[in-house]
Amino acid sequence: MMKDRIDTRRLERWIDDIDAFNQTPGEGTTRPVYSKEDMAAREYVRREMEKIGLEVSEDCAGNVYGVLPGRDRSLAPVWTGSHIDTVPNGGKFDGLAGVFSGMEALRVIRESGETPLRDLSVNVYSGEEMSRYGVCCIGSRSIVGRLREEDLRSHVGPDGTSLREAMQEAGLAVERFGSEFPRKEPVYASLELHIEQNGRLEKAGIPVGIVTGICAPTNLTFEVSGVQSHAGGTSMQDRRDAYMAAAEISLLAERLARESDSPYITATVGDMRIEPGAANVIPGRAVFPLDIRSIRMEDKDELLDRLRAGIQKISAERGVTVREQMMNHDRPVMCDPHLRKVLREAAYRQNVPVMDIVSGPYHDSLMLGDITRVGMIFVPSRDGISHNRAEWTDIRDIAAGAAVLAEALRTLGNEPGAE
Amino acid sequence: MMKDRIDTRRLERWIDDIDAFNQTPGEGTTRPVYSKEDMAAREYVRREMEKIGLEVSEDCAGNVYGVLPGRDRSLAPVWTGSHIDTVPNGGKFDGLAGVFSGMEALRVIRESGETPLRDLSVNVYSGEEMSRYGVCCIGSRSIVGRLREEDLRSHVGPDGTSLREAMQEAGLAVERFGSEFPRKEPVYASLELHIEQNGRLEKAGIPVGIVTGICAPTNLTFEVSGVQSHAGGTSMQDRRDAYMAAAEISLLAERLARESDSPYITATVGDMRIEPGAANVIPGRAVFPLDIRSIRMEDKDELLDRLRAGIQKISAERGVTVREQMMNHDRPVMCDPHLRKVLREAAYRQNVPVMDIVSGPYHDSLMLGDITRVGMIFVPSRDGISHNRAEWTDIRDIAAGAAVLAEALRTLGNEPGAE
Repeated sequence: MMKDRIDTRRLERWIDDIDAFNQTPGEGTTRPVYSKEDMAAREYVRREMEKIGLEVSEDCAGNVYGVLPGRDRSLAPVWTGSHIDTVPNGGKFDGLAGVFSGMEALRVIRESGETPLRDLSVNVYSGEEMSRYGVCCIGSRSIVGRLREEDLRSHVGPDGTSLREAMQEAGLAVERFGSEFPRKEPVYASLELHIEQNGRLEKAGIPVGIVTGICAPTNLTFEVSGVQSHAGGTSMQDRRDAYMAAAEISLLAERLARESDSPYITATVGDMRIEPGAANVIPGRAVFPLDIRSIRMEDKDELLDRLRAGIQKISAERGVTVREQMMNHDRPVMCDPHLRKVLREAAYRQNVPVMDIVSGPYHDSLMLGDITRVGMIFVPSRDGISHNRAEWTDIRDIAAGAAVLAEALRTLGNEPGAE
Repeated sequence: MMKDRIDTRRLERWIDDIDAFNQTPGEGTTRPVYSKEDMAAREYVRREMEKIGLEVSEDCAGNVYGVLPGRDRSLAPVWTGSHIDTVPNGGKFDGLAGVFSGMEALRVIRESGETPLRDLSVNVYSGEEMSRYGVCCIGSRSIVGRLREEDLRSHVGPDGTSLREAMQEAGLAVERFGSEFPRKEPVYASLELHIEQNGRLEKAGIPVGIVTGICAPTNLTFEVSGVQSHAGGTSMQDRRDAYMAAAEISLLAERLARESDSPYITATVGDMRIEPGAANVIPGRAVFPLDIRSIRMEDKDELLDRLRAGIQKISAERGVTVREQMMNHDRPVMCDPHLRKVLREAAYRQNVPVMDIVSGPYHDSLMLGDITRVGMIFVPSRDGISHNRAEWTDIRDIAAGAAVLAEALRTLGNEPGAE
């Protein structure tokens, strides 16, 4: 049984060791894409991949590939993998669980002595989390061609550095971007293990979820302009307070998501920047991001329509102007029925209980769905918490997921025939 | 007539020259208390005071006194003055108009050749605006004893520097604080000229307002704690979003102020700090200031009672906790009837039209009301805008106000009798 060969201690060690590459020790894990810590963590993963006998390479977006060569290298490979960057003050498992269980799966397959027909590759995709450049899934987005060479210059961080400059500073050969991406060689299938980031598996007491579909994010930025003035001097009637309008828009977005018929829709305002930001000055400007997600594109479009109508009303009533910028409006992806069947059968053979589950968060698989069939495995998050230092997944659940992953990779790696 | 002797060009030059001490040229005026720019501006004022023949001194809070000696120096002095610090990206007139019209009034009186009975003193009070240490009116608050030696250590800025350390770095002899303050010597009366920071004088077409009372601020900080989690992973029902609760509290404060019977009550949220502050993370923490002002203490207390009840409800519904910290809860002050009469008669003699007016903003006079009788003169703010780079007051209006101020200072300076 795969399940018995998965080395829980090794998984634990990898997860602990990589956590040293962290900008905020003691305050959760902070490893933004292309930071010093991110690049050092990548180097660590490459060395560990080499130690377990994988062929390691990297593309010019910093995606790392650890390949277990198959018997027929002309066939399209089977991919697995996830990411190693984190949100600010995030946890130790988001992304990492997928990278290391993929490595452990390939190690177990390799050490079984049996060589699969196809190449199996465990990948680290660069910058899956929303980055300071206003774009997420940088690595997988590059692979599928949704991030283009010209976008690297137009995505600029708060310090004025462009994504392109950040990649150059990280030592990547960004001049090859246009010729490397989008990737031309076909991929047979892609499987990704990830923590659930919600409490459904834990509540059900089931260690592994088989994802049916992945919600996709729409990311917008709103900029509200009012009139900056004195907090005491300006009567309540005379105010054109940019922040109060922003607060009203935020609560409207929340209400629309709550009232939606769609069970998987979310709307989040994760930040609020106020100018000038003094206690005794009525804000003249408020800038905030809005993150909308759903399993159905139509639900997001409907929420946006209603939100925009509400914003018009709020702007008129409050005498402010609101500018909207849409950064991405990604299409949700359904997981491939064949891959879901392979995963279900793998779990059955490994004697691991599973349940079907929808993914609220997006993942690199959302991008990879553009170029190949995708399947996902979820493992439980304690108390449903993630993007937080309290994020936790029991190592036995990760090991169970890794066993299902290894079994499914072996099956797919031995499937002959067309791509 | 005083009015003919006021030198408009000199007033204009002073206002323009001091604006060079600015952290944000081209983006409004930024001169925070005890900053390099604030200390240099103070030096400029001292030199200009000396040029017009005043005796200049400074106390250990950095308050500057420019004295025109009277015939009987044993009598309590008459004070005028205002402040030279600004809000971030503020204007050129707030505070400055009062300092320079006071200096110009004393220059005109001095050059008239007639020496008043009492000392007349034009003062610069340190840090009137809400500072990064969470306290406003630092100079006048020290003079009256509302800021005490121990408070200097407990007021700490966002960078961890205490108010005491900032004063030391600015070169002030802070070790004398306990012995210098509160001030022991009586003050006969205090007059302050200030821009209106509202549009009532402009709308009425009247150059000078005589203030009947000064609204007082209550400054609070709210800290909302929820659960930081993943924006996509956590369903709308499972969230404990600190920011959404903060937005709801903000809008409730606004609504309570709008609905209050009190015509002069205001409630302002001037900033919002969200942790961790990423687009795809549900905020775990939101910290924001609330500024409440009114001409009646009871109105503020009633608003606060209703707000606290609302916060309890919001906290319970959203599963967040809210911590309130009250920084100050100042009592409004009524202007002295005798000083108002002196100002009205001065205006009549100078042929300047006046109207009675309530001050929404607080001023150093609010503090000085603890130790002496106070009176205030308002001059119009264009479009009612202040705390903003667009802040503007016609120099002819400042000159008219300075003439009324000079005439009133001469009258009060020659009043004999008890303090």
